Amino acid sequence: MRPAAVVLLGFGRVGRAFTRVLLDTRSRLRERYGLQLKLRAILTSRGGLLAEDILSQPRLGEASREDVPALSGWRPGLGLDDVLDKVERGVLVECLSSDLGTGEPALGFIRRALARGWHVAAASKGPLAAAGKNLMESARRAGVFFRFSGATGAALPAADVGIRSLAGSQVIGLEGILNGTTNFILTRMQEGIPFEQALAEAQRRGIAESDPGRDVEGLDTAVKLLILSNVVLEADFKLSDVKVEGITRLSPAQVAQAAREGKKIKLLGRLETKEGVQALSVAPAVLEPGHPLFQVDGVEKGITFFTDTMGPVTLIGGRSDPRGAAAALLKDIIGMYGRLT
Amino acid sequence: MRPAAVVLLGFGRVGRAFTRVLLDTRSRLRERYGLQLKLRAILTSRGGLLAEDILSQPRLGEASREDVPALSGWRPGLGLDDVLDKVERGVLVECLSSDLGTGEPALGFIRRALARGWHVAAASKGPLAAAGKNLMESARRAGVFFRFSGATGAALPAADVGIRSLAGSQVIGLEGILNGTTNFILTRMQEGIPFEQALAEAQRRGIAESDPGRDVEGLDTAVKLLILSNVVLEADFKLSDVKVEGITRLSPAQVAQAAREGKKIKLLGRLETKEGVQALSVAPAVLEPGHPLFQVDGVEKGITFFTDTMGPVTLIGGRSDPRGAAAALLKDIIGMYGRLT
Repeated sequence: MRPAAVVLLGFGRVGRAFTRVLLDTRSRLRERYGLQLKLRAILTSRGGLLAEDILSQPRLGEASREDVPALSGWRPGLGLDDVLDKVERGVLVECLSSDLGTGEPALGFIRRALARGWHVAAASKGPLAAAGKNLMESARRAGVFFRFSGATGAALPAADVGIRSLAGSQVIGLEGILNGTTNFILTRMQEGIPFEQALAEAQRRGIAESDPGRDVEGLDTAVKLLILSNVVLEADFKLSDVKVEGITRLSPAQVAQAAREGKKIKLLGRLETKEGVQALSVAPAVLEPGHPLFQVDGVEKGITFFTDTMGPVTLIGGRSDPRGAAAALLKDIIGMYGRLT
Repeated sequence: MRPAAVVLLGFGRVGRAFTRVLLDTRSRLRERYGLQLKLRAILTSRGGLLAEDILSQPRLGEASREDVPALSGWRPGLGLDDVLDKVERGVLVECLSSDLGTGEPALGFIRRALARGWHVAAASKGPLAAAGKNLMESARRAGVFFRFSGATGAALPAADVGIRSLAGSQVIGLEGILNGTTNFILTRMQEGIPFEQALAEAQRRGIAESDPGRDVEGLDTAVKLLILSNVVLEADFKLSDVKVEGITRLSPAQVAQAAREGKKIKLLGRLETKEGVQALSVAPAVLEPGHPLFQVDGVEKGITFFTDTMGPVTLIGGRSDPRGAAAALLKDIIGMYGRLT
């Protein structure tokens, strides 16, 4: 049995879902992967919990962020450095929300953890968008893992496939439906429902946020495209390198026209290589029925990698709720520690 | 730079393609993964080549099996044990064709290599169908890797996703179009071409073998389903546990009827869990347009994993030529040695 210390940074929706997944899978992790994950600390902005075995605390599974200070082991003002000093080295699970431009506050925490020889499993996109290549290099230098499935599609294992399954092939392009909210809206528009009404429905169902700008303007797609392109190609594109057009200027007539012709309009993120130059773009595109992503409807997501030796490889999936992100974080940790074939 | 010794077992179509991929990717492997693969031996049934750096031999890229004895370092009668004695430990790349029932001759070679602390990347299905679970356990005990992407879909990274990307989730079922030949034939039948004519076309185009029984009777699909189910669930199903029906009894009228209704008939391999009992089956199935594998036409393959925490995850791809299998072998080796994030 291999014990591994886990420090959880952030106790929002993803952090809580991760805790619940840890509770639910404890015995399976032991049996199948010979792995015992010991949750040693939970850090929030007001302080943290530090204890030998947080998972054994009875009310943990139902705890909200407000309940954490009432749990056993709470220390007001406890910070990451204190914890890294006191706990045997393991994995930092980062579940903050962070700025896409600066990557903060998560970026600084991740840097400190990597520099001190901790593995990191990241769920927020900011640090990857701001400094993905640099973080991968830092991890390599420190001889630790930096993984981020929870930040790059969660239940769509795009980073896994792009980095590991296609290793040894050259990725010459990619094309993805990377944002569930816009895809849901477009699917409803395809059924004849106007944009505003489809958006309102998405908000009502908890699919779209109250401020849906990041989704419908294409920014979320651009960030995911940027992160995936950088990690798969080991490139260093910036967000400003991505040409972005969202779905807000699409007219109902355009969508209806596509539907009449048996086609669909989708918001595609694209990495293309033209005459040796790589270009990143996000824009609505008309897909014909034969297109590999034609069937990706509703909140589902999908991505096609174009490669030299393996041809095109398409991945479709997409539970994008916190539980999917939590499962992706867990999968990353198993890959670091568990006995996988 | 990390050097790794490679011993190649078999120099048929896949073995030769693997050698060419090694030649083509040498500099990329060094730059990107810090990895130097040293091809130290090539073994055939009549003897083998043993040399410090086989890849540097000028005519290697064009060599056929008959040319190997003319290359520098040829030793008639050289066997695997001689080579394992003489070469520093590394990875055995198995590219034989072997019996699906007994797994031989590959199985014995793989067992000996694992027992002596060599990693193994396998391309033939026999050993996995005959003793997949046992080989995985042997590798674990020996502390080495046993990987088999080249045997389980090649360019469709089904084993990667099933084992690694879905680690931590529970796979509760899977459904796959796993055989390119039957899918090609069904796609042509869907277009109104009779079975015999579609089969003849597949044979003419090198898609179907001259004896297509294994494909059209569903056996190849059954073997792939068996291997994937066993490795993903760590189960120990036998080929006799799979209920198999091929496509030979499908009438043109049935296919035409599906086409008229906008549906498609596909040969599906299925793992289902019903009331806690897992069942494996292969049979033609009528797919509706919304089905995740509906678009998988021609020689393409596809698989959907149904999971508890990640929902369904679908993978579509499928270059199934020797180059795809060779790329899959290389990917497995990079995963063993290379610096991957």
